[in-house]
Amino acid sequence: MTAADLKIEPPRLGEPYLLTPGPLTTSYAVKEAMLRDWGSWDDDFRAMTRDMRARLLALLGDGSDDFDCVPMQGSGSFSVEAMLASFIPRDGKALVLANGAYGMRSAQTLEYLGREHVVLNKGDYLPPRGDEVAQILADDPAITHVVAIHCETSSGILNPVEEISEATYAAGRKLLIDSMSAFGAIELRVADIRYEAMVSSANKCIEGVPGFGFIIARKSELETAKGNSHSLSLDVHAQWAHMNKTGQWRFTPPTHVVAAFLEALRGHEAEGGVAGRGGRYTRNRDVLVDGMRALGFETLLKDRWLSPIIVTFFCPADENFVFDRFYELMKGKGFIIYPGKLTVVDSFRIGCIGQMDENVMRQVVTAAKETLNEMGVESAAPPAIALEERAKLAA
Amino acid sequence: MTAADLKIEPPRLGEPYLLTPGPLTTSYAVKEAMLRDWGSWDDDFRAMTRDMRARLLALLGDGSDDFDCVPMQGSGSFSVEAMLASFIPRDGKALVLANGAYGMRSAQTLEYLGREHVVLNKGDYLPPRGDEVAQILADDPAITHVVAIHCETSSGILNPVEEISEATYAAGRKLLIDSMSAFGAIELRVADIRYEAMVSSANKCIEGVPGFGFIIARKSELETAKGNSHSLSLDVHAQWAHMNKTGQWRFTPPTHVVAAFLEALRGHEAEGGVAGRGGRYTRNRDVLVDGMRALGFETLLKDRWLSPIIVTFFCPADENFVFDRFYELMKGKGFIIYPGKLTVVDSFRIGCIGQMDENVMRQVVTAAKETLNEMGVESAAPPAIALEERAKLAA
Repeated sequence: MTAADLKIEPPRLGEPYLLTPGPLTTSYAVKEAMLRDWGSWDDDFRAMTRDMRARLLALLGDGSDDFDCVPMQGSGSFSVEAMLASFIPRDGKALVLANGAYGMRSAQTLEYLGREHVVLNKGDYLPPRGDEVAQILADDPAITHVVAIHCETSSGILNPVEEISEATYAAGRKLLIDSMSAFGAIELRVADIRYEAMVSSANKCIEGVPGFGFIIARKSELETAKGNSHSLSLDVHAQWAHMNKTGQWRFTPPTHVVAAFLEALRGHEAEGGVAGRGGRYTRNRDVLVDGMRALGFETLLKDRWLSPIIVTFFCPADENFVFDRFYELMKGKGFIIYPGKLTVVDSFRIGCIGQMDENVMRQVVTAAKETLNEMGVESAAPPAIALEERAKLAA
Repeated sequence: MTAADLKIEPPRLGEPYLLTPGPLTTSYAVKEAMLRDWGSWDDDFRAMTRDMRARLLALLGDGSDDFDCVPMQGSGSFSVEAMLASFIPRDGKALVLANGAYGMRSAQTLEYLGREHVVLNKGDYLPPRGDEVAQILADDPAITHVVAIHCETSSGILNPVEEISEATYAAGRKLLIDSMSAFGAIELRVADIRYEAMVSSANKCIEGVPGFGFIIARKSELETAKGNSHSLSLDVHAQWAHMNKTGQWRFTPPTHVVAAFLEALRGHEAEGGVAGRGGRYTRNRDVLVDGMRALGFETLLKDRWLSPIIVTFFCPADENFVFDRFYELMKGKGFIIYPGKLTVVDSFRIGCIGQMDENVMRQVVTAAKETLNEMGVESAAPPAIALEERAKLAA
């Protein structure tokens, strides 16, 4: 089966498509998997947990034997907190590479944890670069870990994790990656990029429903993580040790969400794994960006930095454009979009992930065109300041 | 509609009944509510969150205006940790009343949190009593909070929270209740029993599916909880403040699980609320206990202490009785039961909660009878030591 054969059907209950970074539109089969109850202690469910962990590890490619997968209840941010607390020792020091809300959230988490850290804050969207990381690490030998965001969904930028990894390990430090919105659609093969641990969650590019995240980490790191965590619930070492011993989650797992995720993993495999999934999202993005640009919209990012996950568009300068109205009219046409997070210029975001294909993205562009007409917006061009802002970014 | 009119249908996909303390057997309507996707940022979902919080608060009866409800992602233990960390100040000291695994888990959580605490450890099932609490509080003026388990599912005992509350407030201290497996089936009206905060979760007596818990607390406690939490993810104050300001969860909510829970709350109301739900569970327990006793089984607890949530039975002394085989044979007949947690005597547990009625419980007893026959167990009577153990408990 190739991605081209994949049948994408519209939401069966008629709800709007979610053009958001997750929760996202999932297949009916994924949701249907939640129509029965499982005992969390029972063998049947243990087998599901085992299968899920093995399937996730397989996505790492060659070398994945050195890693293990630890699912963790809660939202993705719970898994990020669990990773930071479990792998950065209490006397460690982190360098957080921030260019948006998720980088800043990692820094805030370390604040709660009382872990020493410095932040390279690149503002709303400028990417942290390898040479910057190398310089900071050279200047501060106390830094033990670098924390990077793979795709920063605040802007939709795909951060250069390869060069960040190289700089980190060249300086003898360790890398932790928040790959929340990228894993499953963008390769993160351990043969290609070195890191100690990464996190993602059920309701992102694997296309499950929300309710848990997972940490994928080197076994050597999992072993030495004992005693690091500040939290019983979020202790990755304890969850890992218990799961490997008993096959069970330490505390009640979200059984239905796990069942849905397992079905989502099967769909991911059928689509051709990371390459197939990433290919569809890339086509989604290209159709979306081309179509929106043809309407006069401009993207925040230059092409080189656009992820196939979510795209930020500047709001039109036209005074008839009001985001809340645009949102409601788009929703009325069957598309839920996402507000922007830029501090300098007004913006909005449209996601490319979930059970959607190029045809759906063409409908999104058509809906945007009609909505502009209804609102009386003559030009979708952004204010001059937006383009000045974008000029700061390397091509 | 009265509880007698309630239509309980068997699991539609033919899976076994879950006679466990949760995840439990839910109605098909509850699971069907998960067949669509919601945007977590969208108004429709915010309205669902608002409705859910209001419905939960209404279960407290008169005086609930002084309280607010804060849902929290993760399993029930995540909510317990969130409650303990958010309401016991860093310089506070807790008295944990333990008579089983959940009491001990609260103590372990406080260990992680670095909060000073003492444990009244009553062993496997003996109840902590009001006069004991009064004595400990009189002897140790540093204790600021008492932590009680409402129904300790390790044994199934219903702890005497009323007398614990009286002793706590008579000594000018504050009470926090883990009502995980009791809330929704056993009254916890603020007009009847005083406490500062309680927790429960989606997959217990309200009969939702697992994926989040909720903290119900006095607004005055929520206001002063700022800065107490050790964890960004589990910060009850931050979750509350953000939710009241924006109508949204701080981090991605388990949208489908919330939709299922809302349907479960409607079913709970239709059944007659706490009284109706508790009434059905009580009848379930009575049919189960009477039937099992008629087969020769003995309960760990004397009648006065039996909860309508889950019942512990001693394993028969007969050498042909092997729990794992009993479990598998019962599962083959459509009933998943639960292992015991006693340290002194072998035992198993059967839950009374979930979408089951007296008829189902009669089938459980019949299945147990047939299973004993298949195993060649002639007498279900426990070893003498079991009855000696039970004699320690007041009638």
